[in-house]
Amino acid sequence: MKNYLICKNERVDDLQVPLKNGKTLCIIQNPDYFCFGIDAVLIANFARVPKNALVADLGCGCGVIGLLIAAKTEAAHVTGLEIQSDIADMARRSVRLNGLDEKVAIENIDFNYYNKASAFDVVICNPPYKEIGGGLRNPNLHLAIARHEVCCTLCDVIKTSSRILKPGGKLNLIHRPERLADIICKMRENGIEPKRIRLVHPHYNKKPMSVLIEGAKGGRPKLLFEPPLYVYDNNNQYTDEIIRMYSS
Amino acid sequence: MKNYLICKNERVDDLQVPLKNGKTLCIIQNPDYFCFGIDAVLIANFARVPKNALVADLGCGCGVIGLLIAAKTEAAHVTGLEIQSDIADMARRSVRLNGLDEKVAIENIDFNYYNKASAFDVVICNPPYKEIGGGLRNPNLHLAIARHEVCCTLCDVIKTSSRILKPGGKLNLIHRPERLADIICKMRENGIEPKRIRLVHPHYNKKPMSVLIEGAKGGRPKLLFEPPLYVYDNNNQYTDEIIRMYSS
Repeated sequence: MKNYLICKNERVDDLQVPLKNGKTLCIIQNPDYFCFGIDAVLIANFARVPKNALVADLGCGCGVIGLLIAAKTEAAHVTGLEIQSDIADMARRSVRLNGLDEKVAIENIDFNYYNKASAFDVVICNPPYKEIGGGLRNPNLHLAIARHEVCCTLCDVIKTSSRILKPGGKLNLIHRPERLADIICKMRENGIEPKRIRLVHPHYNKKPMSVLIEGAKGGRPKLLFEPPLYVYDNNNQYTDEIIRMYSS
Repeated sequence: MKNYLICKNERVDDLQVPLKNGKTLCIIQNPDYFCFGIDAVLIANFARVPKNALVADLGCGCGVIGLLIAAKTEAAHVTGLEIQSDIADMARRSVRLNGLDEKVAIENIDFNYYNKASAFDVVICNPPYKEIGGGLRNPNLHLAIARHEVCCTLCDVIKTSSRILKPGGKLNLIHRPERLADIICKMRENGIEPKRIRLVHPHYNKKPMSVLIEGAKGGRPKLLFEPPLYVYDNNNQYTDEIIRMYSS
């Protein structure tokens, strides 16, 4: 890890989530890389994290999901796995910046080769949404990796989750609704039963823009749909629910 | 078929859908059997029926879906398949009552044994929702058959649909959201790709009560979600969209 906290081109954003030390959660980002968006906040809030849970974040990027889980839940520990060394380093410095080294570890590894079987209670992933060949690939490799299935496919995410989850452990994904059939079938193929879905709509009368889904390793079939989550109200302002997610 | 139109214990309901002969669509129902509900109206309106299409309704009951399709679309013909002879007879008399004998046929058969392969452009089904063992079974056999998978399972519906649909033909189902993973996986197992979903919510902030889903025989993966359908507005009255479905 670099021995200074903030590098050139980087900025520090305040996530406005209170920490036990009286400060608020901050995150280092670099505009040359992928900067986290609302989807990371949505999946971090959707995941149910039991007290003392061991949590993994697959493809953690700047580490935002792990930081939010560490700050907002009673998880024992969060492990973020990130294939890109520069970004893993930046995520590690965010952990240090917040004094969360005992609760969050970032490992610079391709999660397909991560060898801790049946180790986690909860896996969370905000994967790249686009299949190779689906839409123009960004010439910036960091952005291409974040958006297209360059380094990992949906199938990789689900296979790895099935391997590293404890029996009964939960996989939490956010993805595009058009991939829902793929997600459900791949989960079942890998022994993860879809248990809970929440659709995210920009407005109450618009089609969903994202799907939040929880699967249980070895679970029994029965899928619970939650009420829809709306991002904007009739005045095009964030709904109260979204504001709560961003500020507590 | 009985040679009188309306039998003892039966009633005639006006569906308020205009017919070409200037009358409105009517249907014979018997309160001792299963009387159709909003789900039949929802699936009849969700299905896209091209001009001159050949349509099948699996487990047609009183025939309401076929009657609505015949009255509201330019389908060439609708075949309703019904295993219970008394109910098939009642459905036939509804067809005659509306002068639709040339557009709708009711066959008294277990659709699992229906042998017209690759014959239909559109299949529609409002199947029983409950698995055997799921919830108390109604002591009235007619009601038990309509609500529980006594005579046909979800798997039967999808297998038969795959067999009787033309390549590219569409299966339209309405079901409980908790069965969505089963529906999607069974469709794919049987060569039907989930293509279009609409969730039906009682109110805009409540979880969905039903899922409407269209699959295409031999289709390519890409699932389109439509905007949610709300049944009641903030004053607990039918929304405009539901009123339109019931009256045109």
